[in-house]
Amino acid sequence: MPAHPLRFGLIGTGRIGQVHAASIAADPGAELAWIADVFVEGARTTAARYGGKATDDVNELLVSGAVDALLVASPTPTHTDLISRAVEAGIPVLCEKPIDLDIDRVEELRPRVNASGVAVAIGFNRRFDPAFASVRARVEAGEIGALEQLAIISRDPSAPPADYVGVSGGIFRDMTIHDFDMARFFLPDIVEVTAVGSTLFDAGARTHGDFDTATTVLRSSTGATVSITNSRHSAVGYDQRLEAFGARGMLQVANAGTSLVSFSGASIVEARPPYQDFFLERYAEAYAAELREFIKLARGEASTSPSFDDGRAALILADAAQRSATEHIVVAVDLA
Amino acid sequence: MPAHPLRFGLIGTGRIGQVHAASIAADPGAELAWIADVFVEGARTTAARYGGKATDDVNELLVSGAVDALLVASPTPTHTDLISRAVEAGIPVLCEKPIDLDIDRVEELRPRVNASGVAVAIGFNRRFDPAFASVRARVEAGEIGALEQLAIISRDPSAPPADYVGVSGGIFRDMTIHDFDMARFFLPDIVEVTAVGSTLFDAGARTHGDFDTATTVLRSSTGATVSITNSRHSAVGYDQRLEAFGARGMLQVANAGTSLVSFSGASIVEARPPYQDFFLERYAEAYAAELREFIKLARGEASTSPSFDDGRAALILADAAQRSATEHIVVAVDLA
Amino acid sequence: MPAHPLRFGLIGTGRIGQVHAASIAADPGAELAWIADVFVEGARTTAARYGGKATDDVNELLVSGAVDALLVASPTPTHTDLISRAVEAGIPVLCEKPIDLDIDRVEELRPRVNASGVAVAIGFNRRFDPAFASVRARVEAGEIGALEQLAIISRDPSAPPADYVGVSGGIFRDMTIHDFDMARFFLPDIVEVTAVGSTLFDAGARTHGDFDTATTVLRSSTGATVSITNSRHSAVGYDQRLEAFGARGMLQVANAGTSLVSFSGASIVEARPPYQDFFLERYAEAYAAELREFIKLARGEASTSPSFDDGRAALILADAAQRSATEHIVVAVDLA
Amino acid sequence: MPAHPLRFGLIGTGRIGQVHAASIAADPGAELAWIADVFVEGARTTAARYGGKATDDVNELLVSGAVDALLVASPTPTHTDLISRAVEAGIPVLCEKPIDLDIDRVEELRPRVNASGVAVAIGFNRRFDPAFASVRARVEAGEIGALEQLAIISRDPSAPPADYVGVSGGIFRDMTIHDFDMARFFLPDIVEVTAVGSTLFDAGARTHGDFDTATTVLRSSTGATVSITNSRHSAVGYDQRLEAFGARGMLQVANAGTSLVSFSGASIVEARPPYQDFFLERYAEAYAAELREFIKLARGEASTSPSFDDGRAALILADAAQRSATEHIVVAVDLA
Repeated sequence: MPAHPLRFGLIGTGRIGQVHAASIAADPGAELAWIADVFVEGARTTAARYGGKATDDVNELLVSGAVDALLVASPTPTHTDLISRAVEAGIPVLCEKPIDLDIDRVEELRPRVNASGVAVAIGFNRRFDPAFASVRARVEAGEIGALEQLAIISRDPSAPPADYVGVSGGIFRDMTIHDFDMARFFLPDIVEVTAVGSTLFDAGARTHGDFDTATTVLRSSTGATVSITNSRHSAVGYDQRLEAFGARGMLQVANAGTSLVSFSGASIVEARPPYQDFFLERYAEAYAAELREFIKLARGEASTSPSFDDGRAALILADAAQRSATEHIVVAVDLA
Repeated sequence: MPAHPLRFGLIGTGRIGQVHAASIAADPGAELAWIADVFVEGARTTAARYGGKATDDVNELLVSGAVDALLVASPTPTHTDLISRAVEAGIPVLCEKPIDLDIDRVEELRPRVNASGVAVAIGFNRRFDPAFASVRARVEAGEIGALEQLAIISRDPSAPPADYVGVSGGIFRDMTIHDFDMARFFLPDIVEVTAVGSTLFDAGARTHGDFDTATTVLRSSTGATVSITNSRHSAVGYDQRLEAFGARGMLQVANAGTSLVSFSGASIVEARPPYQDFFLERYAEAYAAELREFIKLARGEASTSPSFDDGRAALILADAAQRSATEHIVVAVDLA
Repeated sequence: MPAHPLRFGLIGTGRIGQVHAASIAADPGAELAWIADVFVEGARTTAARYGGKATDDVNELLVSGAVDALLVASPTPTHTDLISRAVEAGIPVLCEKPIDLDIDRVEELRPRVNASGVAVAIGFNRRFDPAFASVRARVEAGEIGALEQLAIISRDPSAPPADYVGVSGGIFRDMTIHDFDMARFFLPDIVEVTAVGSTLFDAGARTHGDFDTATTVLRSSTGATVSITNSRHSAVGYDQRLEAFGARGMLQVANAGTSLVSFSGASIVEARPPYQDFFLERYAEAYAAELREFIKLARGEASTSPSFDDGRAALILADAAQRSATEHIVVAVDLA
Repeated sequence: MPAHPLRFGLIGTGRIGQVHAASIAADPGAELAWIADVFVEGARTTAARYGGKATDDVNELLVSGAVDALLVASPTPTHTDLISRAVEAGIPVLCEKPIDLDIDRVEELRPRVNASGVAVAIGFNRRFDPAFASVRARVEAGEIGALEQLAIISRDPSAPPADYVGVSGGIFRDMTIHDFDMARFFLPDIVEVTAVGSTLFDAGARTHGDFDTATTVLRSSTGATVSITNSRHSAVGYDQRLEAFGARGMLQVANAGTSLVSFSGASIVEARPPYQDFFLERYAEAYAAELREFIKLARGEASTSPSFDDGRAALILADAAQRSATEHIVVAVDLA
């Protein structure tokens, strides 16, 4: 155990900010030192609950000298600026995904981040889910031989508000981006993207020219492929499955149930209650593990956290998918 | 392949008789030579479909000289006499269970059967079910270490007609008798029987002083135990499960589904259609395998068919269970 | 029951020919009248087992006047000619898939078939599988609301011999063609095809410039999409799954197991034996049901058999997939 | 939310004491005020972690005037005395099971408890497990019709130390007692007990004349029955299952897995990692819910906590089972 807990500055106190605040407060190796939110009430409420000082001014936090690590959970448009300032200040930062919706801003920031030597992690929390992490470890250990096909099914319980859809960057940059990172968790070197999108049910998507349904196929440099199946709604609850198919077998991640109980009667048997409702519940362990890993990273210990370049790669794939689905073409990508 | 097919004499052309007639006709090593039924029309219809001569007189069949093996599927009260005559005639016989409802008649017949050297097999077909047979083979192979607890769940879809209940000998001699034999398939040397019976729903059982619900616990000489759970009805369909629990793991037999399809919706997930309806469907493979094994036995080749003594042991256990449930006592048994 | 059984002429006595011969012989509404094979020994052996006259000359069969229906199970290059002659002779024909590997020959034959009024069915047997047929019926009945995404997983246990790969027409025309028809069973009006192919493990595929691994995405005119996942090998056995995802739920077809037994021990729990090995076992019921439906069709009764146009559509999709995978483009198709 | 948190006095800081201390500390409606343990270091360490004052003298705690509710997690022989003193002091008490190993002491205490009007709850935490509680609620709601057969499987991962076995009161009073209470959660009015015990593998049990394997059958006054299957070891992990079988269907509680991942390969398919290891993990939610319910009870709000009489009934059943298994008799009981 290190001499003192890692003092966190948290920026943004929305839904995800709350998750991280709770994780920081619960982790014996960390504490919440400063909390910033332009809606200062959010910062104050969070500080009252989990500790730390509240401010509406990020600067105050950055110059306080009392922050060892930054956790960025503010809206996407603020991310690159905050990463930039964290890097300048030499403060390790864990930034929620996506880095930005505009790849140009990401590319512009990239050399500075990579030259800085400051740890920058991107919040692809699913890499830390015990099930996905276990499958990857077993694949790496050779349990199913060479990985040939990866299938990711990712469906949200219901579509987001129409307003949100309008600023989300579209389904690929907003939702599939998690799956792009998951694909690269197993097969980092993707070289080709094909995506098919449809707008079948969501009025918000229709209004904003977005898709609510998408299937994406990625090809890696080795020829191994990934299929990603997305929908913005799912009657059965949060649908998060994965199948890694290899030369010697396969590993599958099932949906997370909410009960050990099943019912059998005259017309159906072994019926179970619906799956867990959404990501805060499904990925609760993943968020906590993500923070633990980032703490190690910030302390200079070995870490497996997704990097700035991983965040950039996911965005490149999202852009390529958007273009593929819109223009009905296959898009080659270079993630180097 | 032997020079000529085994010529079967079939006695009784009811539901089970039909199953055996079809198995004999379909088996390249067997043929249906004679069919006897006191309702001669049943014999004639069966002969027309599967071959063989029809008669209402069992004697004609026994003295024909054209019968190499006997299959007894007539009502229970005829069994001991037919076994006796088959043994006298030196004709191997496969007789449906139970041998009789009266243990005295079984004991009286026993020395003659065992002295005769004629093969007598009792129709405990479940030993030939691929699932149960596989579990037993794996237990024998040591896959779960020493067998400590065996659990059998056996529930019929619905209660038999009240008239039948009246002549059935009671739930233990009529229904549980299959489970007693299955128990002895794994743990032959049972020394103690405790049974708890209830009459909860079946008017026929109430009328005839029978139980419709029963739980029986058997103890073997090694201390390993068996629990048998019975009901005369089951809303979910034919409920036939088994669990062999040993020092190093367990083997479980699930119910047989009727479809590979499952449904998931807003209130339930992974719901499947009901189980197979009843024994003719569930044990179709077992009946065919039972016949194949008996053919080997009749030809003098190695065989695993349940013997006359197995039939006697099951009846002794049924009598003990009946006594235990009626008198509320634990009953010691000696199957030697 | 009609006055007399439908007299079948069977052409081709290979693996599939044998399946059909057995189905015809077992169906009380049909009989095997003539069997033709250029390897006349195959015809003779089949006739000896299932009845009928044997010949090496298809002509003899066609002019016999003793054939009410034709079953074409000979090699693919003979199909169009035999369909043509059957149509000319006014004999209903069930022809194995594919109609041909060359769409031009199919298009050339098409007007004659459709003008003839003679029943021509193509052997997409999977439509008759109880599980797939049940899912489609339930989708049609609205159980899951509007169908939005269909996922088909179809992996063979092992790659075919290299020689066969060379003449197979490639994975899309040879293997995926079943899945294209299954896709159209649910969503007939496909308008766009994207396929990604890889050659990862099979030397035969490498030699002949074929893929051994493929993912195909189809878009229907309604925007509903289909993903098809193929591999020429599968360590777990024949992998045949389907998922129909709709606005109100989903229906899933699981793989067919070989046993009701599961094992639980110190390191794994609920482990079951491998899946059924291959299509003759997995689709045995489908082949029988296919024949029953074709018999109805040949008798002029209502039928749901896949038509010549269904066979043509599947080939168009296969051609489009081949082009998409080879040229890395998205291909628009018009199945009208 | 009440004006102030309920101030708890905790007695005993062993394994279960720690669970309760954590639950009290985490519950916003409660706080840890005093902690007593004869090993005062345990009390001090617990106080340092969760708050409260530490003492080795229970008296100090009881007369402090700062304790609104008592949680008794000290060794079984201390239970009746502590309950007695809590009742005298008018302090609601949640006491770990069993009340005592000697029914005479329980009977002696009973009139005082029931006359006092002070809330006394016994720690049968499994009633609060979400799965078991859900099954009971659904049974009560009539979802499976009349409850006819209840099956409880309860196997510990491994046998306790031999020393513990010697003072445990035997398998029925120590382990099955939880299952007796679960049985009565569904069917309170048990009238007959039959138990079969064996000593198959555990040297500690052999030394102390205890059983390591047991099957118990209970009959309720309605004729509905309960079977309880126990073992002191289980290679597959903590085995905790329940099946409620009724006239219209059944509800089943499966074992709790540790992962959503399954493996399929050439020799096995759908194999999952072992079950949760033991009760602290399996029943974590149950312990927390138990405390929440007790807080309501202590505050005089409605409660479903198991009562002193439930604790007495479980012990009577345990005594009856012990006698049944030892003397090989069926034992009638009267829980009134």
